[in-house]
Amino acid sequence: MPAPVTFWFEFASTYSYLSVMRIEAEAARRKVEVKWTPFLLGPIFKAQGWDTSPFNLYPAKGRNMWRDMERRAAKFAIPFKPWTGEDGRIFPQNGLLAARTAIAALHEPWGRDFVRRVYTAQFAEGLDISNPNVIGDCIEAAGGVDRIYLHMGHSNTQKQRLKENTDAAIAAGVFGAPSFTVGGELFWGDDRLEDALDWALSHPA
Amino acid sequence: MPAPVTFWFEFASTYSYLSVMRIEAEAARRKVEVKWTPFLLGPIFKAQGWDTSPFNLYPAKGRNMWRDMERRAAKFAIPFKPWTGEDGRIFPQNGLLAARTAIAALHEPWGRDFVRRVYTAQFAEGLDISNPNVIGDCIEAAGGVDRIYLHMGHSNTQKQRLKENTDAAIAAGVFGAPSFTVGGELFWGDDRLEDALDWALSHPA
Repeated sequence: MPAPVTFWFEFASTYSYLSVMRIEAEAARRKVEVKWTPFLLGPIFKAQGWDTSPFNLYPAKGRNMWRDMERRAAKFAIPFKPWTGEDGRIFPQNGLLAARTAIAALHEPWGRDFVRRVYTAQFAEGLDISNPNVIGDCIEAAGGVDRIYLHMGHSNTQKQRLKENTDAAIAAGVFGAPSFTVGGELFWGDDRLEDALDWALSHPA
Repeated sequence: MPAPVTFWFEFASTYSYLSVMRIEAEAARRKVEVKWTPFLLGPIFKAQGWDTSPFNLYPAKGRNMWRDMERRAAKFAIPFKPWTGEDGRIFPQNGLLAARTAIAALHEPWGRDFVRRVYTAQFAEGLDISNPNVIGDCIEAAGGVDRIYLHMGHSNTQKQRLKENTDAAIAAGVFGAPSFTVGGELFWGDDRLEDALDWALSHPA
């Protein structure tokens, strides 16, 4: 049996969007089990002295990221609408509510669909995912009851679990998103998704 | 005819090594013309406030890079011997002499072979490429006369050309290595090599 892969994603992360949309098919093809694990990059960036995304701190890198995302999304046929902050929308968005709600939702069969809908709302439709109405719509569209899961998303239990995920990410050496861990190996970036799954295949649990 | 691709590489860059070893075969398969262009990352990093490689500034990222390089090199069957600075070897190495010599050598039919040999000396054999003897051996092994090309490598002409390449890289938006430009598009990283060449194919000059 292939080793299980932990998939670390952050809701504000552009490249996490690509992996969120791609990983189910790639994992199914290899029969690899994937554990979806939302975490927060903010505390990790802060520990390095960053108060925002490196794509904002380093403008040349940021410009390239938006264009690269556009090209990669087109390559994978994933809807994407780039922005640069110049049109008034914020990057990175606040993904706290989304992440806390996802932790509860991922116990349900519709949880992964919910996660995909939140990313699509953000990066294809340009919506504000810190808005509870947006998250509520994603819950309902995925098949959950918005009132119940929004309530859980605001609870201290999910807040604590998100903190635990973030601590576990740091302990695993995670420094960016998306990341994938399998056995003692850490793979960083959507462009390592296939490598991580292949590693799981060639290193049975 | 496919658009020509400019391949920007820096001798101290680990991921440039992978592209240097891979690009000939990938370009030939697509019949894409590639212009090999050494440049210096130092001035670009300095302008961002960095006095060394980001892989040294951010240790978690650095540890992952060495392990990732090891895995990717194995995947592509490229010889590679990682180090972390703990064994006394320096990272990043000083690639000034290598880059200046390469600018002269790349006018010769053996120039690309010379470049590959310098990277292999550094990343597979662990040699110091700021040492003129190491560069001289690479010139001879590639088919040049070491005395002539080392002399050119030390000359003001190549020094000036390397500065011009670096200025051109900055003007093209380059912020890391390896990079690839084709038309107005910038692709960053060895993991975008295929994307850049495919772009050249689908956007004829």
